[in-house]
Amino acid sequence: MSQAELYTGADALMHTLEAAGVEMCFANPGTSEMQLVTALDRTPGVRPVLALFEGVVTGAADGYGRMAGKPAATLLHLGPGVGNGMANLHNARRARSPIVNLVGDHATDHLKLDAPLTSDIAALAGTVSGWVRTAQTADQAVTLAAEAVAAAHQGQSATLILPADTMWADSPGVGQPVATPQPKPVASATIEAVAKAIKGAKAPMILLNGHSTQDDGLAAAARLNAVGVRVMCDGFVGRLSRGAGRFAPDRMKYFSEQAVEDLAGTDLLVLCETVPPVSFFAYPGKPSVLTPEGAEVMTLADVGAGGPQALADLAEALGAPKSVDIPRQDLSGPGPKWNAATVGQVLAQHLPEGAVISDDAVTAGMPCYMTTQHAAPHEWLMLTGGAIGQGLPVALGAALACPDRKVVALTGDGAGMYMPQTLWSMAREQADVLTIVFANHAYRILNIELGRTGAGEPGPAAEALLQIDNPRMDWLKIAEGFGLEASRAHDAASLDAHIQSAMAQKGPRLIEVALE
Amino acid sequence: MSQAELYTGADALMHTLEAAGVEMCFANPGTSEMQLVTALDRTPGVRPVLALFEGVVTGAADGYGRMAGKPAATLLHLGPGVGNGMANLHNARRARSPIVNLVGDHATDHLKLDAPLTSDIAALAGTVSGWVRTAQTADQAVTLAAEAVAAAHQGQSATLILPADTMWADSPGVGQPVATPQPKPVASATIEAVAKAIKGAKAPMILLNGHSTQDDGLAAAARLNAVGVRVMCDGFVGRLSRGAGRFAPDRMKYFSEQAVEDLAGTDLLVLCETVPPVSFFAYPGKPSVLTPEGAEVMTLADVGAGGPQALADLAEALGAPKSVDIPRQDLSGPGPKWNAATVGQVLAQHLPEGAVISDDAVTAGMPCYMTTQHAAPHEWLMLTGGAIGQGLPVALGAALACPDRKVVALTGDGAGMYMPQTLWSMAREQADVLTIVFANHAYRILNIELGRTGAGEPGPAAEALLQIDNPRMDWLKIAEGFGLEASRAHDAASLDAHIQSAMAQKGPRLIEVALE
Repeated sequence: MSQAELYTGADALMHTLEAAGVEMCFANPGTSEMQLVTALDRTPGVRPVLALFEGVVTGAADGYGRMAGKPAATLLHLGPGVGNGMANLHNARRARSPIVNLVGDHATDHLKLDAPLTSDIAALAGTVSGWVRTAQTADQAVTLAAEAVAAAHQGQSATLILPADTMWADSPGVGQPVATPQPKPVASATIEAVAKAIKGAKAPMILLNGHSTQDDGLAAAARLNAVGVRVMCDGFVGRLSRGAGRFAPDRMKYFSEQAVEDLAGTDLLVLCETVPPVSFFAYPGKPSVLTPEGAEVMTLADVGAGGPQALADLAEALGAPKSVDIPRQDLSGPGPKWNAATVGQVLAQHLPEGAVISDDAVTAGMPCYMTTQHAAPHEWLMLTGGAIGQGLPVALGAALACPDRKVVALTGDGAGMYMPQTLWSMAREQADVLTIVFANHAYRILNIELGRTGAGEPGPAAEALLQIDNPRMDWLKIAEGFGLEASRAHDAASLDAHIQSAMAQKGPRLIEVALE
Repeated sequence: MSQAELYTGADALMHTLEAAGVEMCFANPGTSEMQLVTALDRTPGVRPVLALFEGVVTGAADGYGRMAGKPAATLLHLGPGVGNGMANLHNARRARSPIVNLVGDHATDHLKLDAPLTSDIAALAGTVSGWVRTAQTADQAVTLAAEAVAAAHQGQSATLILPADTMWADSPGVGQPVATPQPKPVASATIEAVAKAIKGAKAPMILLNGHSTQDDGLAAAARLNAVGVRVMCDGFVGRLSRGAGRFAPDRMKYFSEQAVEDLAGTDLLVLCETVPPVSFFAYPGKPSVLTPEGAEVMTLADVGAGGPQALADLAEALGAPKSVDIPRQDLSGPGPKWNAATVGQVLAQHLPEGAVISDDAVTAGMPCYMTTQHAAPHEWLMLTGGAIGQGLPVALGAALACPDRKVVALTGDGAGMYMPQTLWSMAREQADVLTIVFANHAYRILNIELGRTGAGEPGPAAEALLQIDNPRMDWLKIAEGFGLEASRAHDAASLDAHIQSAMAQKGPRLIEVALE
C-alpha cells in the first residue's frame, strides 16, 4: 500500500507493525480500538484473530511468541482489557515471550474527564511489561510502534497505549523500523573461567533456561553432560525441546525439600540464561533458597544473552565430544493403573513429530511429562508464571504460529475453567489443537499444599473450597456448546481410540479424561 | 470462639472480619491463602463461596456490596488473582461498592527472591482500590483488617495484602473494630443556597448518583420534581430503585450528542453524590463535556455524602409537598415485533416485587430497561465501569446477599462469554438467578460505535472482529455443562412460558433469547 492510501494514524501504525514483521493480531477490541480494527482491513499482512476474553488474547500471544520467536500484536480495550489479560501477561513475562500490546485509551482530551472506563493503564501494564509507552500524537505512535517491536524481541511484552485521537488522526506515514539491540556474545574470558571452575569442581552443575532449553542449547548441553557436568533446567521454562533423540536435562523439582535433596553435593552451580533457583512458594520451616550452601555460583550467560553459543563454546573449552548421540528408547504402553501417567503413556505412542504440548495441568502435568520423555521429538510449553489458565490460550497461539504442527493442550478441570471460552476461538480458527482435560473434580494441588503450608486438616468449609465436584462440570457439553467435537475417556483403551482419532484429523478436539 | 481457640494469624484475621460484620467470603484461593481457607472452618459466621475464576469472585463481591450495603471479603491469589479480578474491581470502583480484598502474597522473606508468582500487587491493586495496605506481621494484619472494613464502608474496595507468614504466625488475637468515619451532613447554608438558585433558575436540573438513586433519595427527588425541578440520574449507577409506584428519574443518555440535546436549555445543574456529566467515549468532532454551556453548576452533596437527606432538606426548603404519589400504570403486553424490547415487556409481566436486575447487556439492556419501568418494584444494577462481563457475577453476589429476592441477569452473548463459569457457582450455590442471554451473535454495540468513531465501513477483517456467529455458541449446552437447567426462546410466547416457569421456581435457570 502506498503512503497515499494510508488514511489514519491506525493505518500507519498497523503498517509499521507489518513492516517490522508482525503477522498476527489477537484481539478483543472495544470502542477505543475501532480505528485499529478497520485498519486491519487495509493491512492484509496482519491476521486478526478474535477471542471472547482478553486473557485468551494475551495467552495466545504468549503461545505464539514462544513458537514463532517473534511478537504478535494484541488489541486490548483500556484498563479493564489489560486487567483481563494481566494473568497471562504475567506468565508471558516469566517466559520472556515477545508480545506487542496495543491498548486503546480514551482520546487525550477525554482522559482528564475521568469517564467511566478511565483508569491508570500505564501503572497496570507496568507490573507485567518491561516497556510501557503512551503516544501523544499519531506521529509518535508510529515511532513507538517500531520501538515496541524491537523491545518485544528482547524477550518481554511491550505495551503501547494509544489514545483514540492518535489513531483517528491523519496518517503520519509508516514508522521507520528499529533494530533490536543484540546481546554481546559471552566473553571468552568468562568461558575460560567457567571451564576452569568446572574442571576443579567435584560435582559441577549447569542450570538452563531461555533459549538454552531449545535444540541448539540442549545439543551443546549434552556435550557438557558427556564430560561429567550435570545439566538441569529450571522447574518451569517457556519452551523445552524434548523427546526421542534429544538430550533431556533434569528438571528442577517443585517442592523445595526435594529440590534441596536433589542438589545436595553440587559444589559448582553455573547459570545459563537464568538466576539462582528458589522454591515456588515458601513453607514454614522449609528452605526457599535452593542453591546448596557453600556451592560456588557462576554466570555463564545472562538472562536473554546467547546461552546456546556460550554452551557450545564451553563444550569446546572442556574438550567435549563434538556431538552426542542420544539413543531412542522403546515406548512402554500404558500400565494397568488408570491415572494421569496413563495419559502420557498413551499420548507418547501417538504424538506426531514436531508436536507442541501446552501444559498447565498442575498435578496431572508432571506424570504426563515423565511418561512422554521418549515420544517423538516435540516442544513442551510450561506454566512459567504459576497463573493457571494459560493452557488453552497458549495452545491456540502455538497452533496459529505453527499450522503444520499438532498442538496438545493438557489442562486440569480447575485450570481449564479459567478461560473455557478459548475453545470457541479454537473452533473459529479451526486450530489444530487437541485439548485434554484431566477431570479430577478438585483443585488437587491445593489438597497437597494445604498440609505443606501448615494450614492443617481441612474441615467442611475448607474442603468446599478445594473440591469442584458439586456440581460436576460436563466438559463434553461445554466443548460442544463452543463448537468442538468432544469425547470422554474412562480407561486406556477408550483414551487410545480417542487420541488416535484426534491425531488422524486436523482441527480442534477435546477429550475429557475421567480420572475419578 | 475464645481467644485461646484462635490458632493462627489467619484465624484472628477472619474473626476480626466477622466481628466487623463481614458474613461472606468469595474465594478462588491458592497456596498462599491456605491458612485463610482453613481459618474459615473455624469462623462459621463467614460463609465461603467458591468461584472458578477471580473475575467471578470480585464481580460477586460487587453485587453483594450493592445489595447488602456492606462488604463481603474476597480471597485472591497473589498478583495474577488480583489481575483476573481487576475488571470487575474497576466496575465496583465506579459503583462505589464496599469490598474487602484479601490477597495472599508470598511470605515476607520469600518475596525478595522473585519466585515465579511474584509481582507488584500493591501497584496493581492501587489502580482500582482506594485503600491498599500490606501487613508485615500478624498483629498488623488484624489491625489492618478492621481498618479495611471501615475503609470499604466508605464506598470503595479495600485491598489488604497478606504475606503467607503473617497468616501462619500464631494468633495475635482479634483486632479492635474501627468505626467508619461518617460524612458530615450537608450544611444548611448549602441547602439554602441551592434552594435559592433553583428558585431563580428557568430550567433547574438535579443529577443523582450514589445512595440518592435508591428509595429514600428518589422519594425526596420526587418532591423536588413536583415543584418543577427536573431530576436525572447518571447513565450508569450502581443501584437504581424503580418500578411501579416509584419516582423514575430521567437517565443520562449514552451518546453524547443525544445527551447534549436532552440537556439543552438547562440553566442550573445541581449535583447530588455525583460529578459533572461527561460522555462515555470521545468521538471526533463531538462534545465530551455534557453540561450545557453557561449553565450554573452547584454541588448539593459530595460523592458519598448523605444525598438522600440533602434532597429531603432541599425539598423542605423549596416548600415541596411532603410526599408524591406515583400512580401505577397498566403493563402493555409484548407487541408484534420480536426483539430485545419484547423481553422487557414479557419480563415486566412476571417480575416479582423486590426483584433485582443485573444488567450488562449493552445494546439489549436499554430496551429492556425502558419496557420494565412499570413492572413491580425492583432494583436495577448497572454496568458502572463499562467493563463488560460483570452481569453474571454481580447477579450471583446479589442473590447471595438477598436470598429472598429473585435475581435476573440480563447479558449479551458477547458480555456473557467473559465469565461463563459464573454459571457453575450459581448452580453450586443454588442461587436464585434467572440468566437471560440475548443471542444476537455480534458485538452489536461495536457495529454502532464503528461509524461514530469515524472508523468507516468494516471490511472483512473488521467485520470478523465484530461478529461472534462463527461458530454460533450453544448457550443451552454450555449452561447444562455447568449444571443449569436451560431453555431457548424464539418468540414472545415461548419466552413467556420459560420466564413464567423460571419465576415459579427457586434456583438458577438460563434462557437464551434467540434474536436472529
